[in-house]
Amino acid sequence: MKYGVAIFPSKKLQDLANSYRKRYDPHYALIPPHVTLKGPFEATDNRIKEIASKLEEITSKVKPFSLNVLKVSSFQPVNNTIYFKIEMTNELETLHNSLHGEDFFNEKSEFSFVPHITIGQQLSNDEHSDVYGQLRMLDLRHEEQVDRVHLLYQLENGSWTVYETFRLGEE
Amino acid sequence: MKYGVAIFPSKKLQDLANSYRKRYDPHYALIPPHVTLKGPFEATDNRIKEIASKLEEITSKVKPFSLNVLKVSSFQPVNNTIYFKIEMTNELETLHNSLHGEDFFNEKSEFSFVPHITIGQQLSNDEHSDVYGQLRMLDLRHEEQVDRVHLLYQLENGSWTVYETFRLGEE
Repeated sequence: MKYGVAIFPSKKLQDLANSYRKRYDPHYALIPPHVTLKGPFEATDNRIKEIASKLEEITSKVKPFSLNVLKVSSFQPVNNTIYFKIEMTNELETLHNSLHGEDFFNEKSEFSFVPHITIGQQLSNDEHSDVYGQLRMLDLRHEEQVDRVHLLYQLENGSWTVYETFRLGEE
Repeated sequence: MKYGVAIFPSKKLQDLANSYRKRYDPHYALIPPHVTLKGPFEATDNRIKEIASKLEEITSKVKPFSLNVLKVSSFQPVNNTIYFKIEMTNELETLHNSLHGEDFFNEKSEFSFVPHITIGQQLSNDEHSDVYGQLRMLDLRHEEQVDRVHLLYQLENGSWTVYETFRLGEE
């Protein structure tokens, strides 16, 4: 079974992200707008309790923090994903590192962590320049509090279901 | 903002439900397969913490229980919804009653509670007889444990995001 760990932002920010995802993101119907902390990883069905208890340990040590949306950005030339860029914070870095360290299945991340909310992906080069050209000008500044993260699992159709919520800074 | 309370069954049961929902349920992309404990209700944005704390109180008093799928059934003649019928248990009844009682916004349910997982809805009469005629014969017997319920909120596009998970029988 595939698992992942993510933050779901407020309804306000999700609605804004969805107004773009609807047109530009083929994953629109599979998962609500989110900040990925740990991308899809395989674990056997009965390991979910172990995963959940490790996550509880990790999240209990991180205090609620401010999530700042900075601007629209793009991963080009690596790929044609367009996203809301989120300001890096100590808390995001700690969560990401803990979820990719020795205590959490020791699955190191191949990429450096760029916190973001995807709003478009799998775009052709032309679509990408067109859409990015329009959206990069947007004044998106937005700040909100994050006080929880979610553990999800993936169904056969590719969609994600929340298994559990973890409140930050709580034992 | 609109809220709801639901149980998400195991991946196995969700995958099975989705194999039908994909074709017969227009809500397929808006929410994973679920058992509704309290249907959509309005509350102001800042009431969510109050709602969550009431839910915590309610769910702490109910022990984990067995969820039994009995058969495929239909709400006809009330409407053309086809569903997996779930066996009523004391725990389901207690959860439902607590979520519709005086302690929980005092919003009485108009309908008697029939626990179910919808697999088809908004079907024409012909589709309904056709699909129900085929599915009512299925031997669906399935049993699993339920140890958590979820509080969700609805986005502007109609999809649902999990706000919080509550484990049954835990303070």
